[in-house]
Amino acid sequence: MRLKGFEKLTNIDEALSTFVKKLKPERLGFERISIQAALGRVTAEDIQAKNDLPPFDRSAVDGYAVRARDTFEASQFSPKFLKLTENEVHENEAREIWTGNPLPKGADAAVMLEYTKKAGGKIEVEIPVTPGGNVSKRGEDVQKGKVAIKAGTRLKPHHLGLVAALGTTYVKVVKKPKVAILSTGNELVELGHKAAPNQIVDTNRLIFSSMCQELGAEPLNLGIAKDNLEEIGAKIREGLEKADVVITTGGTSVGYLDLVPTVVNQIGAPGVIVHGIAMRPGMPTALAILQGKPVFILSGNPVAAMIGFEVFARPLLLKLLGVDSEPRSVLEARLTRRVASALGRRVFLRVSVFERDGKFFAEPVRIKGSGVISTMTKANGYVIIPENREGLEEGESAIVHLFDKIEGAQRV
Amino acid sequence: MRLKGFEKLTNIDEALSTFVKKLKPERLGFERISIQAALGRVTAEDIQAKNDLPPFDRSAVDGYAVRARDTFEASQFSPKFLKLTENEVHENEAREIWTGNPLPKGADAAVMLEYTKKAGGKIEVEIPVTPGGNVSKRGEDVQKGKVAIKAGTRLKPHHLGLVAALGTTYVKVVKKPKVAILSTGNELVELGHKAAPNQIVDTNRLIFSSMCQELGAEPLNLGIAKDNLEEIGAKIREGLEKADVVITTGGTSVGYLDLVPTVVNQIGAPGVIVHGIAMRPGMPTALAILQGKPVFILSGNPVAAMIGFEVFARPLLLKLLGVDSEPRSVLEARLTRRVASALGRRVFLRVSVFERDGKFFAEPVRIKGSGVISTMTKANGYVIIPENREGLEEGESAIVHLFDKIEGAQRV
Repeated sequence: MRLKGFEKLTNIDEALSTFVKKLKPERLGFERISIQAALGRVTAEDIQAKNDLPPFDRSAVDGYAVRARDTFEASQFSPKFLKLTENEVHENEAREIWTGNPLPKGADAAVMLEYTKKAGGKIEVEIPVTPGGNVSKRGEDVQKGKVAIKAGTRLKPHHLGLVAALGTTYVKVVKKPKVAILSTGNELVELGHKAAPNQIVDTNRLIFSSMCQELGAEPLNLGIAKDNLEEIGAKIREGLEKADVVITTGGTSVGYLDLVPTVVNQIGAPGVIVHGIAMRPGMPTALAILQGKPVFILSGNPVAAMIGFEVFARPLLLKLLGVDSEPRSVLEARLTRRVASALGRRVFLRVSVFERDGKFFAEPVRIKGSGVISTMTKANGYVIIPENREGLEEGESAIVHLFDKIEGAQRV
Repeated sequence: MRLKGFEKLTNIDEALSTFVKKLKPERLGFERISIQAALGRVTAEDIQAKNDLPPFDRSAVDGYAVRARDTFEASQFSPKFLKLTENEVHENEAREIWTGNPLPKGADAAVMLEYTKKAGGKIEVEIPVTPGGNVSKRGEDVQKGKVAIKAGTRLKPHHLGLVAALGTTYVKVVKKPKVAILSTGNELVELGHKAAPNQIVDTNRLIFSSMCQELGAEPLNLGIAKDNLEEIGAKIREGLEKADVVITTGGTSVGYLDLVPTVVNQIGAPGVIVHGIAMRPGMPTALAILQGKPVFILSGNPVAAMIGFEVFARPLLLKLLGVDSEPRSVLEARLTRRVASALGRRVFLRVSVFERDGKFFAEPVRIKGSGVISTMTKANGYVIIPENREGLEEGESAIVHLFDKIEGAQRV
């Protein structure tokens, strides 16, 4: 008997599209929450403007509200004189106004303070304004009834500002996907427990809980299962009961320790959809469906599992949230040295991007084995080497997907 | 009397450096928290490895642990035969091993499953390995006593993974800066209250609370102060008592409504350090110091205030957190049209970046007045037009600072 690894490795794009076609993931339901608690949540429906914004014509500058025609032909050498009023603005009158203030009745424009002189009860205007000049018209920002924020928007501070300005105080947001996270392996001990020789502290649940939190999902901790079918099966069943998504790490490979895919296929149909992906790291990743829910079976190696999460679990969680796409920031950088790759595999090369003389460079982080977690902390992004390349050349320009900041790239 | 706006506008860099020199901001104190609660927090000290990582020599592959010399000269046509064992590996023996497992006694390398055949109690090895081949050596990832995570690191999932792998369960993180946020203006009403004609819902406290949260600071809500010296003064004093930083919006301009800078100077010395900045939007921004604490006096316009926060409050909050720099993601994009600017002002041009045929373009968002908050939701980044430029040309390449995702730029 010859164990040749996986019989066939599936291409990433094919794996993802097969999986999504079978799973048919739908956006989760919604909940109605206060906008004060909505930072980072995703809108479940379009938010329409219930009123015009601005709600009235208002000054866009500090200065004086005027009738535009009274300023025509004004210049520094031949200023127009306008009488100050505190009420409605009549012919040849002006009224002090500040940015954001409603335009008083009679006025149709504003003159900037800088182009005026004040003397007694009058001002001199040194520049003409056109009707509507320096005025934000009612509804100019958002018109009543129009969509101000689209469904599927992740609410950032500036979105919340707009929502609040519209007088909206509660918003419908998509429920947080619940993600049950299981670590498997006889060698694992709980965080905070002393690892005996040959034991390892389980770090994967903490990593994936955090990654779920960053995405706006709610992690559920399923604990550690020993390498046996019963224990793993019971935990996965518990996860399916409580959560929308199950993620496991460890116990996936090829051969006799391929426990998690085996258990998943025992639990029910369709079970494992794809197992063995043409990627590095992350080759033993498997994608499964049970009870209509996705089960991501990731490598036990933290780094391989993080890449597996990035490539498969992240886009799926975004779909459940109703977010079309939320790509990581990318930038173009030159590789500082040649890197070899394997034809037919998509390689996720961890790199450390730095800036020198206004140009970005990507230094491949030297690794040995996908389990070396410090490669993730030494790196701040990854470069994808496609399946049809045997490597990338020194000096070649590559797209870096950033997951952390770039050292020394301070700019204002 | 001629009101020429500000007598003198201060350059942004000069304003910031004068302010920082007088303030001498220091990193805040620390607190010790569980790593399970540490996502997004900033380390207050270097985290040293208490143990080697990996804690033992372990296999980087699935396959067999062997003595390297027993595989020398192995090939597909002339394989070496090794006897399977479940104990210590002696001469011409091999033991099944999985990624991450400790290397058994006697073995000094691992052979990948793919290059072996199993038959009965033996395996055929088809490829030679060198001593140490496919093995992650003890301490290879992080050596005991070495710094694994530097002070001033914002903890992301991969950092937490490394910290956990080192057996560290509690970390010292910098305390969250407390930021007291005040809105001023007679026209403002609380969120959730009906705005009468000529009134405006206050959005600024929500925006800046959210921006503080995103940075890892703790916002304190000082409410709304009417446009009078007593009320503003009482609120600012309350803020100074409770918080590390005070942010106000509104009531800063030039002339008789310049209330906040006036109050600040009444409260104490040194008071206002800079008032009137050569920037657009955000010209009326003022920077002050009271009781050794920074007071950021921002425009009442949400957009101008957001830019003021970005340029002045954000770097200062990062200093209090002990983070050297945390620049926004940048990318290079071509401007889709010409934009005019004013010499001597640094202009923050809001742009909408999109991707077409693998190239990035930046479409300037059309605006009228800095108060138009939908320009922030239509934009996903800003371009800085420097003081010495009268504008940027169509097709010109510019650095965009991103604050939101790029539509349609899905990549894996």
